[in-house]
Amino acid sequence: MSDQPKTVTAAVIIIGDEILSGRTKDQNLSFLAENLNEVGVQLHECRVVADVKAEIVAAVNDLRARFDYVFTTGGIGPTHDDITADSIGAAFGLPVDHNPEAVAILKAHYAHTGAELNQARMRMARTPAGASLIENPVSKAPGFRVENVYVMAGIPAVCQAMFHSLKHELAGGDPVHSISIAVHLAEGTLANGLSALQDKYPDVSMGSYPFYRDGRFGASIVARSQKPDRLTAAAEDIRRLMRDLDGEPIEADA
Amino acid sequence: MSDQPKTVTAAVIIIGDEILSGRTKDQNLSFLAENLNEVGVQLHECRVVADVKAEIVAAVNDLRARFDYVFTTGGIGPTHDDITADSIGAAFGLPVDHNPEAVAILKAHYAHTGAELNQARMRMARTPAGASLIENPVSKAPGFRVENVYVMAGIPAVCQAMFHSLKHELAGGDPVHSISIAVHLAEGTLANGLSALQDKYPDVSMGSYPFYRDGRFGASIVARSQKPDRLTAAAEDIRRLMRDLDGEPIEADA
Repeated sequence: MSDQPKTVTAAVIIIGDEILSGRTKDQNLSFLAENLNEVGVQLHECRVVADVKAEIVAAVNDLRARFDYVFTTGGIGPTHDDITADSIGAAFGLPVDHNPEAVAILKAHYAHTGAELNQARMRMARTPAGASLIENPVSKAPGFRVENVYVMAGIPAVCQAMFHSLKHELAGGDPVHSISIAVHLAEGTLANGLSALQDKYPDVSMGSYPFYRDGRFGASIVARSQKPDRLTAAAEDIRRLMRDLDGEPIEADA
Repeated sequence: MSDQPKTVTAAVIIIGDEILSGRTKDQNLSFLAENLNEVGVQLHECRVVADVKAEIVAAVNDLRARFDYVFTTGGIGPTHDDITADSIGAAFGLPVDHNPEAVAILKAHYAHTGAELNQARMRMARTPAGASLIENPVSKAPGFRVENVYVMAGIPAVCQAMFHSLKHELAGGDPVHSISIAVHLAEGTLANGLSALQDKYPDVSMGSYPFYRDGRFGASIVARSQKPDRLTAAAEDIRRLMRDLDGEPIEADA
């Protein structure tokens, strides 16, 4: 089966009461979805969990067993509600303590800024035993990795910088290519023909997303596949279906 | 223990490959978080799952057992990738078929618009046996409820309209009040004092959210509680802590 594409999967865990209370809108999920896809890693699930250790542990242990990679965001700052390091330690059954390499980074940083490296800030140097660090070019306090779980900050700018620091480590599979074709036809008009095309191309995933723009209804059909040739053929069939229904295909960025 | 506040909880399941692929940014989570809070329901967890029946079933069955309410968004349109009704039926062990009340709604709607009520559009009238409908004032095809699981559309305007249609049914608990106080102090400076205040007020949840605005670092401290008196007292202590550290509290909308 050498022509089978290699699929590498991931899950994201967003740790944060502020997202669940509606106070803060998450920005990390869409960033990670897009950027993982670019390195050949397919995001299969995301969970948003509260700042509760048992909930974080349960999510980490469920997802790290089911997916190739898990990425967490949030809860690695200096305050009492930052409990991610302890939760990851508990999930893996590892002790959590000050990581010498992380301590050195914080010492150098606070010597430079002049702020006091107090007990609270030292919390940001705690990791499970044996964790490797993820560089934080924005605000220095590092993230860390234990096995296939990458622990990153929740602040979007820091999360993004950490992801760029670590992404060279990821062993991606074959990338998923996609084509998006919009048309001013109702979903219900397209649906039967599209279903037949989905049956014809089981290795191309077809999604239909209705829209209402400029006073007109329409649908965007997104086809995704790890096989570029099949994707091209499926897209041609989708355009033909639209024309047969008197709709003009509108190419768009997928 | 008659002074114990009543807590009512919820989880959200966002069904959609388009969110996980990064193509579409979810807008429903923050809407539901805010609006559930307003009716006294606390959102405790959210999952974003793929358009895969087994994944949807697993999420529904896990979350409906753990929380008072579950809200799903997405996957109730006319196309082949709309598998939410079948997945909810499978989760509850209920057969799924055309719901006479939903069929009547669609017949009236398409008689009005003149579009054909074909087999694909009839899919939107399928519900698990015994489901009650959720009105859709935007595009008519209804959502539905089975026990404590509310099934809504993914399109934000439709999801929001459905939520407003159903929210009178929700039996909320005591609302969570919140106060947000920002200050131009680093989180690491506030952390020790804030931790002591969290210990002093176990019935007030305190979160710290760092920010960088107008060239200055700071933190927003958000205190949340179902007990207004305790919240007021905690907020006063938080302001005093900030002033003791030479920071000026800035009141903000929580």
